[in-house]
Amino acid sequence: MDITVAVDCMGGDHGPHVTVPAALEFQKGVPGVDLVLVGLQDAIEAELRTRGAAAGPRLRVHHASQVVTMDESAATALRGKKDSSMRVAVNLVKSGEAHACVSAGNTGALMAVSRFVLKTLPGIDRPAICSVLPTMRGRVYVLDLGANVDCGPEHLLQFGIMGACLVAAVEHAENPSVGLLNIGVEDIKGNDVVKQAAELLRASGLNFFGNVEGDDIYKGTTDVVVCDGFVGNVALKSSEGVAQMIIAALREEFKRSAYSRLAALVALPVIGAFRRRMDHRRYNGASLLGLKGIVIKSHGSADAFAFEQALQRAVEEVKNGVPQRISQRMALLPPPKPA
Amino acid sequence: MDITVAVDCMGGDHGPHVTVPAALEFQKGVPGVDLVLVGLQDAIEAELRTRGAAAGPRLRVHHASQVVTMDESAATALRGKKDSSMRVAVNLVKSGEAHACVSAGNTGALMAVSRFVLKTLPGIDRPAICSVLPTMRGRVYVLDLGANVDCGPEHLLQFGIMGACLVAAVEHAENPSVGLLNIGVEDIKGNDVVKQAAELLRASGLNFFGNVEGDDIYKGTTDVVVCDGFVGNVALKSSEGVAQMIIAALREEFKRSAYSRLAALVALPVIGAFRRRMDHRRYNGASLLGLKGIVIKSHGSADAFAFEQALQRAVEEVKNGVPQRISQRMALLPPPKPA
Repeated sequence: MDITVAVDCMGGDHGPHVTVPAALEFQKGVPGVDLVLVGLQDAIEAELRTRGAAAGPRLRVHHASQVVTMDESAATALRGKKDSSMRVAVNLVKSGEAHACVSAGNTGALMAVSRFVLKTLPGIDRPAICSVLPTMRGRVYVLDLGANVDCGPEHLLQFGIMGACLVAAVEHAENPSVGLLNIGVEDIKGNDVVKQAAELLRASGLNFFGNVEGDDIYKGTTDVVVCDGFVGNVALKSSEGVAQMIIAALREEFKRSAYSRLAALVALPVIGAFRRRMDHRRYNGASLLGLKGIVIKSHGSADAFAFEQALQRAVEEVKNGVPQRISQRMALLPPPKPA
Repeated sequence: MDITVAVDCMGGDHGPHVTVPAALEFQKGVPGVDLVLVGLQDAIEAELRTRGAAAGPRLRVHHASQVVTMDESAATALRGKKDSSMRVAVNLVKSGEAHACVSAGNTGALMAVSRFVLKTLPGIDRPAICSVLPTMRGRVYVLDLGANVDCGPEHLLQFGIMGACLVAAVEHAENPSVGLLNIGVEDIKGNDVVKQAAELLRASGLNFFGNVEGDDIYKGTTDVVVCDGFVGNVALKSSEGVAQMIIAALREEFKRSAYSRLAALVALPVIGAFRRRMDHRRYNGASLLGLKGIVIKSHGSADAFAFEQALQRAVEEVKNGVPQRISQRMALLPPPKPA
C-alpha cells in the first residue's frame, strides 16, 4: 500500500527549518511513503535547496498562502485563514489526496480546523488528544490531554474506546487494559463524573481495569489512561515540570566542584544512555482521535528528529486503520439513551 | 511560648515504630516543645522502653483504645471510633490541651474527624490539604491536594487566601504570589469554574499572578498554586510517578555494566548530594487548612525522619498563628452575596 502524508510545513516554532529537513530524513528511512509539503512555496523550496534536495513525484510541494500563528485563537484560524497551510493539509486528508496529516501548529486551531473539515466519527461527540508516554514497563496512551475541559461520563467512555482502539491498532495488543484516572483506587473515590464514567466503562465490554492514580501512569499499570482534558493536561505538564527540575538538579550537582566535574566525565557514557532513554522527543506526535481522518499533532518546539517521529506515527495509524477501527468499535455500543 | 503537640502514634503504615522514635528525635533537636503521645498505652510505652526512653512531664502518653486503619472509610472512623488515637489527638487540640496535632493516619478520616471536631473558620466552606513542594527556585505551596473533588470558584478563592496566609506566616513572605492552575496562561483557557475563580482572585486583594500551568509548579513561578482537589491530587501523584521512573532509570543505567558500576562508585558523592536534594521526606507534612486548629497530615509511609519534619511543620504553624491569620484575612472579604 502506498501512503501519502500531508505535512503542514509552516506550523510550530521553527516552521520549514524543521519540517522540511524532517521530511527529507524521514523519506530516507521509510520507503513507500509520499509526502506533500504544504505551505508557502518559496519558503519550502528555499529550504529544500539549502538541503540539496528538490521536489519530485514522491515529495510534492503544495502551496498555501497563509500561516496560522502559534498564539492565534481557534476561531480566527478557522474563519479567517481558509488558505492556511494547516487548513490545506487537513483538506488533503478530507479529499483523499493524503491518508493523514501532521502539524506542529497550535493545538486549539488544529483541533478546530480538523473537527470542522473532517467531522467526528459516528457516536463520537468530541475528538480527544492522545499521547504516548514512557512508563517503567513500556508505554502508556493517555487521553484527553487538553481538547475537552468539561467532560461528561459518556465522553470519558468514548475516550476509553478510542484509546483502546489506538493501542490495539498500533501496538498490536489483543485487549488493551483501560484505567480511569482518579484520586484513589476505591470505587467511592472521585467526583460524580468519574464515578458514572466507571460504570459506563465497566459495562462497555472494554478490558476496564478500574480506577488508577497519577503515579500509575508512569508505573504502566494499564495500557490506556482516560481522563478529562483539564486533568490530563495538568498531569502531563506537571510531569514535564518535575522531570525538568530533576534533570536540572542532576546537572547542577555534576557541575558543583572539580571532583564532580571529573565524576561527570567518568559517568558520561552512563549519563548519555540515561538521556537517550529519557528523550521525550521519541514520544513526539499526539493523535487527534475520533475524527474521520488521521491528524497528528507534533509538539510546537519539536526539532527535526522529533518531527520525524510524528510522521512515523501518522504512517503507523494509516497502516493500521485507526479511524476505521474506532468506527467499528463504536458501532458495537448500544445506542445512547434519549436525553 | 511553650508549645504542646499531640501526636497520633497509631496512624500510618508503621504506627509507634515510626512515630515514637520520631518524637524522641524531634525533642532532642527542638527544645520547648511538649509532646503528647496518643494511642494504645502499652504499645507506646513498649516502644519507648525499646528506645531506652520513658514518659515524663514533657513527653506524656495519652491512652486511646481504638485505631483508625488506613483503608477505613471516613464515615466509619467518624461514627464508630470515638476513642481512636486520631480522634483523641484532634480532641486535645479542640480542648486547648495541645496547640496542634500530627497524624500519619488515613487522609479522608483525618479530614472528616478534624472538620467534625474543630469546625471550619468563619467564611471557609471547606478545609483544604496544602503541601509544600520543591521547585527550581525554592518551594511552592499547592492546595487543594485531594480533600475537595468538586470545587466551585468561591472555594478556589478561599484556597488562595488560605495558601497566601500560610506562606506569609511560615515563610515570612510579605505578599506571596498566587497562581491558578489551568491548561494555558491566557484568560480564555480552562473550564467555567477556573474562569470565574480567576475573576474572584483578581478582585480579592491577593497578589494574584493569574493562570499557571502544570510545569509552573516546579518552575516556582508563584509562591502558591491553587486548584481543585481532584486536579491537585492527580498533579501531585503524576509528579511522584515520573520522579520515581526517572530515578529508577538512572539507577538501572548505573548498574548496567562493569564500567557503569565503576562510574557509579566515582559519582557516588555527586549522586548522594543529588539524592539528598531530591529527598521528598524533607517536604513531609501537609497542612489541613481552614480549620479552627492546626492539623498536620504526615505521609502514611513516612519514616522517622519524615515524620519529624511533619512535627516541625506543626510547630512552625503554631508559632506563626496560621489559623488566626486566615481568620483575620477572611474578615476582610466582602460578605458573600445571598444565594
